[in-house]
Amino acid sequence: MPVFRTVRGMRDFPPEEAELLRYVEEKTGGIAQLYGYKEIITPVVESYKLLAAKAGEEVRSRMYTFKDLGGRKVALRPEFTASVARLVATTLRNEPKPLRLFCRGSLYRYDEPQQGRFREFWQSNYELMGSSKPEADAEMIMVTDSLMKAVGLRNCVFKIGHVGILRGILRQENVEEKVQNGTMQLMDKKQYDDALRLVEEAGTSKNCLATLRKLVKIRGSNVSEVLNEVERHVEGYEIAVKAVRNLREILKLVSESGEKVNMVVEAGFARGLEYYTGMIFEVYVPDMDIALGGGGRYDKLIELFGGEPTPAVGVAHGIDRITLAMQKQKTLLRTEEKKRVMVIPIKEALKRDALKISQMLRDEGITVEVEVMGRKVTKALEDADRRKMDYAIIVGERELKEGKVVIRNLKKREQKTVEIKRIIETIKPFTVR
Amino acid sequence: MPVFRTVRGMRDFPPEEAELLRYVEEKTGGIAQLYGYKEIITPVVESYKLLAAKAGEEVRSRMYTFKDLGGRKVALRPEFTASVARLVATTLRNEPKPLRLFCRGSLYRYDEPQQGRFREFWQSNYELMGSSKPEADAEMIMVTDSLMKAVGLRNCVFKIGHVGILRGILRQENVEEKVQNGTMQLMDKKQYDDALRLVEEAGTSKNCLATLRKLVKIRGSNVSEVLNEVERHVEGYEIAVKAVRNLREILKLVSESGEKVNMVVEAGFARGLEYYTGMIFEVYVPDMDIALGGGGRYDKLIELFGGEPTPAVGVAHGIDRITLAMQKQKTLLRTEEKKRVMVIPIKEALKRDALKISQMLRDEGITVEVEVMGRKVTKALEDADRRKMDYAIIVGERELKEGKVVIRNLKKREQKTVEIKRIIETIKPFTVR
Repeated sequence: MPVFRTVRGMRDFPPEEAELLRYVEEKTGGIAQLYGYKEIITPVVESYKLLAAKAGEEVRSRMYTFKDLGGRKVALRPEFTASVARLVATTLRNEPKPLRLFCRGSLYRYDEPQQGRFREFWQSNYELMGSSKPEADAEMIMVTDSLMKAVGLRNCVFKIGHVGILRGILRQENVEEKVQNGTMQLMDKKQYDDALRLVEEAGTSKNCLATLRKLVKIRGSNVSEVLNEVERHVEGYEIAVKAVRNLREILKLVSESGEKVNMVVEAGFARGLEYYTGMIFEVYVPDMDIALGGGGRYDKLIELFGGEPTPAVGVAHGIDRITLAMQKQKTLLRTEEKKRVMVIPIKEALKRDALKISQMLRDEGITVEVEVMGRKVTKALEDADRRKMDYAIIVGERELKEGKVVIRNLKKREQKTVEIKRIIETIKPFTVR
Repeated sequence: MPVFRTVRGMRDFPPEEAELLRYVEEKTGGIAQLYGYKEIITPVVESYKLLAAKAGEEVRSRMYTFKDLGGRKVALRPEFTASVARLVATTLRNEPKPLRLFCRGSLYRYDEPQQGRFREFWQSNYELMGSSKPEADAEMIMVTDSLMKAVGLRNCVFKIGHVGILRGILRQENVEEKVQNGTMQLMDKKQYDDALRLVEEAGTSKNCLATLRKLVKIRGSNVSEVLNEVERHVEGYEIAVKAVRNLREILKLVSESGEKVNMVVEAGFARGLEYYTGMIFEVYVPDMDIALGGGGRYDKLIELFGGEPTPAVGVAHGIDRITLAMQKQKTLLRTEEKKRVMVIPIKEALKRDALKISQMLRDEGITVEVEVMGRKVTKALEDADRRKMDYAIIVGERELKEGKVVIRNLKKREQKTVEIKRIIETIKPFTVR
């Protein structure tokens, strides 16, 4: 039989990498709790229609789509928001607002594999439903900032924009929504010339083109200065002006929150998903050109999915991308190393006693690997050393008759004979918190 | 737009159910740590060939199979073992044995939906590679028993058998492997008459048929008695006799481990997957006719997948099935309720102060939901009550001028004015451990 491999674009996480992924995943759960977000779990396989509804052409064309054995057109979820919106429009329809929901898990997109981008990837996702207030938008940035700090990432930068600036101008120029979407997508890819050509072809005014041309160049970290400049440029475009003022209010709340958050405002910033209606943002670390997270406001989505009109903001974080950033920044995991114990019977007939002692220790929360290879003690001890275990408990006949075992401290290379009922007090202070 | 639903056979977990699923999932991780199993993560999407290789016709025909955009025939994993075997045969090829590996996540099978059976389901999976000893087999039962106890399930019963009993007889009768597989599958479905017909058609001896006919009826909880009876019946079938003796040794280790484990031995027990070669088992609770977990020995799998010959045992547990059993048994979750705080500004202009105070509390590990609806204090307090929050911190202008806020204990319905720097000491003893 041939050697099997992972499918192209998919990957395994061997123990160390898996530990890191779970570490970040756990932190995302901790942040959810801290901010009052309740976890929900939705399926990986959803109806194609649901996932395609508002995903945007870009994402739609890269979905894993197929028919199930019942002939249903289904797809693997490329993001969480459609599923959350479905749930909010149905099962959770009558939940009081604000509704804070959290989910995490694997997502699927048929992108070209490259560093940090796989076809299966993990995200944590926070959605705040029911509030149109700027403090809700600010909370998304804060949640993200808290997560970055919780995993120990340094020098994060938030790239922030507002869909209402560009869309506001296009709407006032009567550009139809489909062309707006196309323009936003080109903007997202920074193909500004193509975007402007599309707008020009839609028959917009000279002023509009000139404004857009200026806007796409405006970016900077002095938030209030940048926003003033943007506001001057969009004068006369009411929706755009409102968008700028909304963004100003949101970012003011963030900067006055007491947390130091590095922000760069980009007037021409757009994101791949079509459903955004307000503030949008992404978070980056230096030396990595892919976003570690991103989100924004999407006030129309829930009603599009058959629910009550519900203003909403959300953010998703790339869990596996965060682990990559942590590796690059050599972030230390703040986990306590749990001490590990190996229990070794000196002969076959003592296996049951070894198992019994192992079980007794596990009942006290101590990590025990019992010898299962039938090796001689010296061989098993060598293995315990190689695995960097902390203690070996050697179960011998003579000691056992006196109700005792030998405990060997593998780090200090010393051993002593101890009563079985004293094993726990001998090693416990070092093995469990 | 129509109301979207989950795809048939798929389901959502709203907050309470999601909490339960995550609770069990976390326990599976705890057990892994206790027994020294290292977590790995493998993709949901694998090559069809890998997953089909040793899955058995039953599972193979119910896989979610499709072509990805690159034309590769892929499938959603219906179980973990093939993926783990792939990893052990490749990336982890040189890891010292024994190798204890753990994984958990969602799996996919196109089964007919029914109570406790969904097309997306969750499992925890423990594999111990490199040992052919009975203590390794025993460890699988112990791991399972520990998990059941950790989640608080009562009256679990282990149904236990040994593939070597039936297969040993068939092999000695020169029944070809394909027919053996077919027979085992019918046995698994308890279609004993059909199974025996298949064996008869293969041209086996009368003694063989008579033996099998007796064996499929033997079951009982007095382990040594049952095994003695089985051994008498299979006399002359050497491999079968060895299998019985192996099983006796394994179960002796389990019963002498000090843990009380209810076991029922079934001589005619078979499991759906083709790759088992030794002891097999499943665990049940009363009043539920689906297994909560099951596993066994599969000594040939790793080499079939291109690795070194590696004896191995494994077990998988149905995480969502366990949650169902917990609901049936009304098992209490042993989690500490974390107290929750709502921070409410009495007017718009104080939002930033509310955010700042929220952030300060979160930095101390306190769960805070900040008011984001722009409601009046009375309305917000009503909402906090409905959400069963514990404290409300009301941020008012007058108090703020003196560096103070109002803390309201929502359960006791009393409030007091406290200095901001004293908030934490006032509520912390009750909100974090």
